This record gives sequence, structure tokens and C-alpha cells, in this order.
Amino acid sequence: MGLLIKNAVILTMESEKPEFIDANLGIEGNRIVFIGDIPGDFKAATEIDGTGKVILPGLINSHSHIAMSLMRHYADDLPFWIWLNDRIMPLEEHLTGEDVYTGSMLSIAEMIHSGITTFADMYFFMDYVAKAVRETGIRANLSRGLVFNNPEDLKKLDSSVELFHKCNNGGDGRIKIDLGPHAPYTCAPEYLKKVAKVAGDLDVGIHIHISESRREVEEIYSLYKKSPVEYVRDCGIFENRVYAAHCVKVTEDDIKILTNNNVSVINNPGSNLKFGNGFAPVSAMIDAGINVSLGTDGAASNNNLNMFEEMNLTALVNKAADHSPTSVPAYTALKMATINGAKALGIDNETGSITVGKKADIIVVDMEKPHFYPRFDLVSSLVYAAQASDVCTVICDGRLLMKDYQLLTIDEKEVCRQADDTAKRLILKKG
Amino acid sequence: MGLLIKNAVILTMESEKPEFIDANLGIEGNRIVFIGDIPGDFKAATEIDGTGKVILPGLINSHSHIAMSLMRHYADDLPFWIWLNDRIMPLEEHLTGEDVYTGSMLSIAEMIHSGITTFADMYFFMDYVAKAVRETGIRANLSRGLVFNNPEDLKKLDSSVELFHKCNNGGDGRIKIDLGPHAPYTCAPEYLKKVAKVAGDLDVGIHIHISESRREVEEIYSLYKKSPVEYVRDCGIFENRVYAAHCVKVTEDDIKILTNNNVSVINNPGSNLKFGNGFAPVSAMIDAGINVSLGTDGAASNNNLNMFEEMNLTALVNKAADHSPTSVPAYTALKMATINGAKALGIDNETGSITVGKKADIIVVDMEKPHFYPRFDLVSSLVYAAQASDVCTVICDGRLLMKDYQLLTIDEKEVCRQADDTAKRLILKKG
Repeated sequence: MGLLIKNAVILTMESEKPEFIDANLGIEGNRIVFIGDIPGDFKAATEIDGTGKVILPGLINSHSHIAMSLMRHYADDLPFWIWLNDRIMPLEEHLTGEDVYTGSMLSIAEMIHSGITTFADMYFFMDYVAKAVRETGIRANLSRGLVFNNPEDLKKLDSSVELFHKCNNGGDGRIKIDLGPHAPYTCAPEYLKKVAKVAGDLDVGIHIHISESRREVEEIYSLYKKSPVEYVRDCGIFENRVYAAHCVKVTEDDIKILTNNNVSVINNPGSNLKFGNGFAPVSAMIDAGINVSLGTDGAASNNNLNMFEEMNLTALVNKAADHSPTSVPAYTALKMATINGAKALGIDNETGSITVGKKADIIVVDMEKPHFYPRFDLVSSLVYAAQASDVCTVICDGRLLMKDYQLLTIDEKEVCRQADDTAKRLILKKG
Repeated sequence: MGLLIKNAVILTMESEKPEFIDANLGIEGNRIVFIGDIPGDFKAATEIDGTGKVILPGLINSHSHIAMSLMRHYADDLPFWIWLNDRIMPLEEHLTGEDVYTGSMLSIAEMIHSGITTFADMYFFMDYVAKAVRETGIRANLSRGLVFNNPEDLKKLDSSVELFHKCNNGGDGRIKIDLGPHAPYTCAPEYLKKVAKVAGDLDVGIHIHISESRREVEEIYSLYKKSPVEYVRDCGIFENRVYAAHCVKVTEDDIKILTNNNVSVINNPGSNLKFGNGFAPVSAMIDAGINVSLGTDGAASNNNLNMFEEMNLTALVNKAADHSPTSVPAYTALKMATINGAKALGIDNETGSITVGKKADIIVVDMEKPHFYPRFDLVSSLVYAAQASDVCTVICDGRLLMKDYQLLTIDEKEVCRQADDTAKRLILKKG
């Protein structure tokens, strides 16, 4: 028994220019089995009426630290280093695995509401994040954040390998484990080399922050006489599939290196703006042939996990930064939030677009709202006018996670209450 | 019989730092009559439960061209002059008063949904905009856009005077008429001088665009050897209450002139970014003592009328433009969207904050959503996490315009359908 979306207007994200198909769409198990006429032998257990709606691939949030939603609205309008050292890290010291689970559930509730069906996460207690992913039905690439300052930290790499053996392909294949060396400024060269080697042995991807701030660039240059991109390359990291968050302060030479090494870049406009780090050269990177996707970063520095907001931000902000109203057009922003994210995470054979045979990661946007009228350009509508709250129905891996705005796999009120209790307990522990 | 909001957490916007009051709030007629204990003689016809909600003054969209929502999603990712000359103006040529009314109704539906209770508008057929304001119960400062290129255009100023006599203080006092000389580059000096004089005679404000783009600055300089700000000042415009939209390309000297002349500046981040015009120096203008408020501009260049998005944009983008994570903190963005807007429009004795005696322009934000948890800082929540769709109830001039997400003065479906029909008819007329 399958799931049928009738009378759908489908934006496939399969082609270089926007392609809309007016059709029915059928799901059997976790896959899209037809787009078009309903086969005679197809039986639908559930039908969704697509009238007045647009069907998109589920959005892919390709850089986040989802458990940090526990610290949302706790430290705003502060410089990065005060935010990190004086506010966030003293709370993180007290986090337990259960707390990370609670924060993950809060974030997954928010992400499903806003049409995200896949996220990439770097944090710790990742088995607890995996538990939340299994229970809620969302898809994720998970990496334990690795900070390498002394020999003891090598254990964290061992625990990444354990996490891989324990969780990779878990949740009916929805969970992928990657490695997460945190950043050039928190990882010494010998360790990055080791991570590169282990990633190769396990055949997994690498999730890393690179060139987020001017201070990072200066610090790495003073240590190694290299840019952060050069430093990471020279440690052998780029011999693997890499998705690098931020890349705000990259030079033309850096862009060439990223291009030549097939590194995907994750643009995080909300976070980069909020910390005053500036504007990643998104257009220049795309023009160079880099696969650029989009992420929210953690909610403690954003303060939401809202990919419609990030699409809007990247489309708007890059026009101003480039002094060009044609920079990052709407469809580019949509690609960054869908198929490009899937490519970055190495799962574009499974998700990121709508086509027969792919996993059914699909969202339904309710267009019966004033801001979607008149009906001229649906792509512009989705990027320049939509709110995350316009997503009414979400399917991931063939399973309904939200229907008519109601979450089906999460007790939302309870999750919000628990997150509030946990956050307040953390503050007390911090003292 | 009054209107009662019980158990409310009220963000008053009355003070320099955020002030929250936990109390009941009573409305009698169109005014707030108490905040605190319910007087024995107060009878409520309607009660609203404030539990889990935050009460704010209605947002003030202090620069827009609301009927342009008819051209929403019609011309995106284009340079300004192609957008204007090849796409927008050929449609505007065919607009009728009825069309402007239809577009206004669409925009007012969207604005009420997103918590806007007052807007400032510059366009034409303004008596039709006034009609929509009267019918829907929203508040507005209206200005007929004045373009002065030849003597015949003087008639438009006469029609502004007529509009004033016909509509000022209409809609139970909710409508104010101001004068709207379009911009330095569309108004010759002798006409600006005339507008300044007429504004003084009528004792009304002046709504104008200034220094929106580099091209405007170059054009005005080549004509007059002055900046647009200096040019407008020298025509006597600043002898009146002036609210100047954009002010993106202003110099330090311009900022001094604006300060010394008590000119309010309307920041329109969405529109300025989308056209690639750049970043208005918001922090520098605020530091200089200028009253800076916030507007959406028209939906044909935005593409929505969403003040939560504009608050978020101005708070984020100015941090990046200033290389400072402390620029335009959340509460400043909220002031720009409320009390500063009221000051710009000369109605801060009536609206823009919540206090006994002011008109009851009040919105209720539903905080029972994952992105508002944990509950640390409500001001950050409203600026960095909220969506316009979190507004559940809207009161303007003491009257409920939306309750529990349902518009009460507008047939929303019908308004959307009519706007769609009108827009498509315009395209056919254009040919």
C-alpha cells in the first residue's frame, strides 16, 4: 500500500533550469515509484491532494549543530569569542548524552516543520543524535566533532570509528556517519593527517569548518604561513569527499584549490552575518564550478533552523555584496538547499531531487496565502516570499513526518517542555 | 463593552531597554484603558487568553507601495532599470483605480497576517488605497507619488491637496495624508520647492526616496554638484516633517544634514539587497541621533510585506556590513519596526508602543512553537527566530482584524483570486 499525491505541481530540481511537472506522484515503501498516470495496480493507503500546493524535494540543511538549540536565545548580540568562551562552552561542559538527545528532538521538530528532511550535524554524544534521527524518521549525516590539541584527543577519533561501526546505515539506511575534524585552528597537522587516513579507510566523508573568520585566517597564517584552505589540503583532508562549512574568508587561490579538489562548500549566511564575519563569495565559488550548498549552523547563533530564511538570505545578501541584482538568482538558492546539499553529503543518488527511483523525501508547500499571489513565478515565490511555516506536509524515506501542519512522529509540546527544563538545568549547573 | 487580553506578557516598547509587563490589558473603544488589575466596572465583550503568547505594539511598515503586490513575482533577478522600465512601468501604465484597490486589499491581507497595523504608502489612485484602509480597519499614512518633469505634472500636486481635504483623518482618524515627491532624480528643484511650501501650508509630512542607488547619487551630482540629501535640503523640503526612504548611499556630511534637520530615515534592507544597492549605514545614522525606522518597500521588489523578515535582515546584515556582531541589536530592530516608525509618521502620540491612553494597535505572537524554545530572551526570539506567521491575533484602533490566524475584515480567498485575475489582465493589456 503506497502513498499518493494527486494533482501535484512538482518542482523536480532535476535540471539546470526550473522544471515543473503537473502530475500525480506515487510512493511505495521508501521510494518514488511513478510520476504521471496512476498505474492500475497501485493501491494508495494515504492520498494527499496537491491542489493549490507545490511539491519540492525535502530541504537539506548541510551544516548544523542541532543540539545547540538548547542554548538558543541565550547569548545574542555578542562578539564570537565572548559568545563561545564565556557563554556557550561553560554550558556545553555540563551537557549529557540525554541533554543532546533532548536538544536534537527540539531541533528535529523545528526542522520538520520547516521542510527539512536531511541534515548534516557535527557535535558530540552523536549516538544520542542518531537515536533522535531513528525515532523521528528524518535523514542525517552525523559527525562527531573532533578537536585535537593533545594526544588524549586521539580517543575521540577512535570513538568516531566506533560510531561509524555502530550507526552507519542505521535508521533503515537514513543515517550516514562522516568524520568531523572541527577546524584548522582546533586541529594540529598530525591529527588532520590521521583523520584523512581514517576517512579513506572507512570510505566516509569529512565535515569541517574552514575560513569562517578573519581571526582564523590570521592565526593559521601566523602558525603555518598558509591559508586555512592550503593548510587543510596539505594535511591530505581533500583526498576524501569533503564538505566545508563557511569559507567566508577565502582567496582566489583558495577557490581554485577547493575547485580542483572537488570540495563542497556549505554557505551559512545567517550565522556569518550574525557574527559579523561578512559575506562568503558564493557567486565566485559557483562560477568556479564548486558545489555550494546551504546550512543553518547551530540555533545558538542564528537563532532558528529555517532553510527558507537561509535561501532568502543567500539570494539577497550576495546581490548586495556583489553589487549585482542578478547574483544568486532564486533557482540557484533552491539548488543550494536541495540537490547541492545531497551532493555535498554524498547522497545525491538517493535524495535532493524528485525522480522515479529516488527515496521519497518530499515536502508540500501550501500556496493558498496572500504572499503567493498573483501566481507568476513559483521559484521566486519560494525564495523571495515563502515562510518556513508554509510547508504543510513532509515525507521522508516514504514516511509521513508531518501532515497538514501536524507532526506525526514527535510529541511537540512535550519536546518543547523538556528542552526548556533541560536548558534551565544547564544554567543552574553552570552557576 | 471592551476587549480584554488576560495573563499577557507585554513588551511595551516604551523604554530605552526592553520592558516586559505581566498583566491584563483592557481596551475600550479604540484606546488602551488599563494595564494591570481589571477595574471593577470594566465589561469585556471579547476576551483573549495571553498564556504562552507575547503582546507587542502593532508593527509599522513605514515605506511601501502596496498596490505593487499585483506585480509580485513578475520581474525578479533583474537590474533595477530593466525591472522598472521594461517590466514594471509598462504594467503600471494600464493600472486603474479599481486595480489599485485590488492590489491594496491583497497587501493589507498579507500585512495583517504578519502583524502590521500601520503602513506608509506612496503610489497613485490613493483614494482607492484609502478606500481599502477604511474597509479593512488598518492605519495608514498615504502620499500620492509626485513626479515633476513638466508643468502639467503640477496637477498631481493639486490632486494631493484634494486628497488631503477628502481623506485626511478619514477612517475614524486612521488615515493621514502626507505629500510624496518621489525622488531627487524625478523632481526638478522648482517643484520640490513648491511641495515644501504646500506641505508647510497643510502642516503635513513629506514621504520621499533619497540616495537609493549609486546611479542616483551620480546623476544628481552631475546636475547640481550636490548630493541628493543636499539637493533636497536646498529645496526647502527639510523644513517639514520628512521621512526619507533608503538613504543607502549617504556620506558623513549627509548624515549630519539629516540629523540636524530631524529627518527620519526608513531602512528597507530587503529591497536594497535585492537590487544590489548595498547596505545603508544604519548604525552610523542611529549613532548620529537619526530616527531610523523600517519598511518593506513594494512587494514587486522584495517580494513580501513581512516586517519580521525586515527586522531580521536589518539586525543581521548591518552586523556583517559593520564587521561587528554588536551592531543593530535585536531591541533596536524592534524599535525600528514600532515606535520609530510612529515617530517617522508623526503619530507616536497615538501608536507605536503600548501604554494607557494610546490607540489600541496590538499584536499577539504565539510562542508555542519549537523555534521559541528554550525561553531565554524574548526580544532575541522575536527578531532572530520568529516568522510573520507566528502572529495569531491583530488589533488596530481597538478593533480585532485577525483572531486565531483568521482575518475578520477581509474575504481572503476572494481577495487573492481577484488579485490574480487583475494581474493577469494587466499582462494581457500590456501585450
